[in-house]
Amino acid sequence: MKTKTRLKRKLVFFATANVHKFNEARRILAEFGIATVMINIKGVEIQDTDIERIAKTSALDAAKKCSLPLFVEDAGLFIKALNGFPGPYSSYVYKTLGTRGILKLMENVEDRAAEFRSVVAYYEPEGGMLKTFQGKAEGKIAEEPRGTSGFGFDPIFQPVEAEGGRTFAEMSTEEKNRYSHRARALRSFAEWFLHRG
Amino acid sequence: MKTKTRLKRKLVFFATANVHKFNEARRILAEFGIATVMINIKGVEIQDTDIERIAKTSALDAAKKCSLPLFVEDAGLFIKALNGFPGPYSSYVYKTLGTRGILKLMENVEDRAAEFRSVVAYYEPEGGMLKTFQGKAEGKIAEEPRGTSGFGFDPIFQPVEAEGGRTFAEMSTEEKNRYSHRARALRSFAEWFLHRG
Repeated sequence: MKTKTRLKRKLVFFATANVHKFNEARRILAEFGIATVMINIKGVEIQDTDIERIAKTSALDAAKKCSLPLFVEDAGLFIKALNGFPGPYSSYVYKTLGTRGILKLMENVEDRAAEFRSVVAYYEPEGGMLKTFQGKAEGKIAEEPRGTSGFGFDPIFQPVEAEGGRTFAEMSTEEKNRYSHRARALRSFAEWFLHRG
Repeated sequence: MKTKTRLKRKLVFFATANVHKFNEARRILAEFGIATVMINIKGVEIQDTDIERIAKTSALDAAKKCSLPLFVEDAGLFIKALNGFPGPYSSYVYKTLGTRGILKLMENVEDRAAEFRSVVAYYEPEGGMLKTFQGKAEGKIAEEPRGTSGFGFDPIFQPVEAEGGRTFAEMSTEEKNRYSHRARALRSFAEWFLHRG
């Protein structure tokens, strides 16, 4: 039964303008036999401290623009000692302050705990079904940026599960996908998507 | 003609949850004989680097919720050396990093130029008219927070026009309203509002 479902080719639309995110998602969903199509439509992003609400609104808006069932993914880096900053605004903060800005804010800060959170929001216009899936990766902010893979704050994030304190940017996509917040949210989505009947 | 217009009592609704903003606005609009009513309705705020688009969307959304003609005001502190950070996310950054966080980011930064920008967006559901008004205040980021008036980043912002390098937080509301971005946007709105016929 499970084998049969897995072999049946399924297709899903991912509304994103970020090709790095798309490439990560494509590999993970492929593990489940799901083919991912990138649609470069940007759903509106609201200002909110809750990334689940941001993702929901964005999925609804993107689906309104193209009338397709689709998912969006929103993520953020939440640093404990900075009260959750940069959180939902990680992309803007990356563009303005960069990893150097975060490291400056973390100078002489002992508690370097942080987590990456991801929410996948899937919306089907027919029937108006909206579902969300969450994933997180716990880790620490590195003392210096290390590595060149991935994107955004990957060079300063050391997931606790990786050996040797390596950062996401020091891993292949395959290895990052073992621990990452995004991979976890996507796997949870994929399980649901395949077994919804 | 002008005297007659100014004496005629006019009323305007300000959609905001920020009582400090309301108090500043009430005083300025009173100079023009306009009475301001605070309505605690929050229009959606989108993520955007352009505060004019944020204010427009917010005014439309707030008006949809209460079917009244109203204005909203959106503002941000744009620091040149930080590529415009915190900009549209000033309120979130104030809550998470505070003035201390900004000062840490500005340590050993020579160019301390910054500006406060404000946009007032007025929307009238009847006829669907949307108008925006802008104001800005140029200044510098202080080395240390000074003063207790105002709100947000006022203690670290020294407007160029004030004597002695005083910060907004070292001024009375009346004096702040002489130089402030918000006051300028509101005066521009008031002039239009009174003379639109």
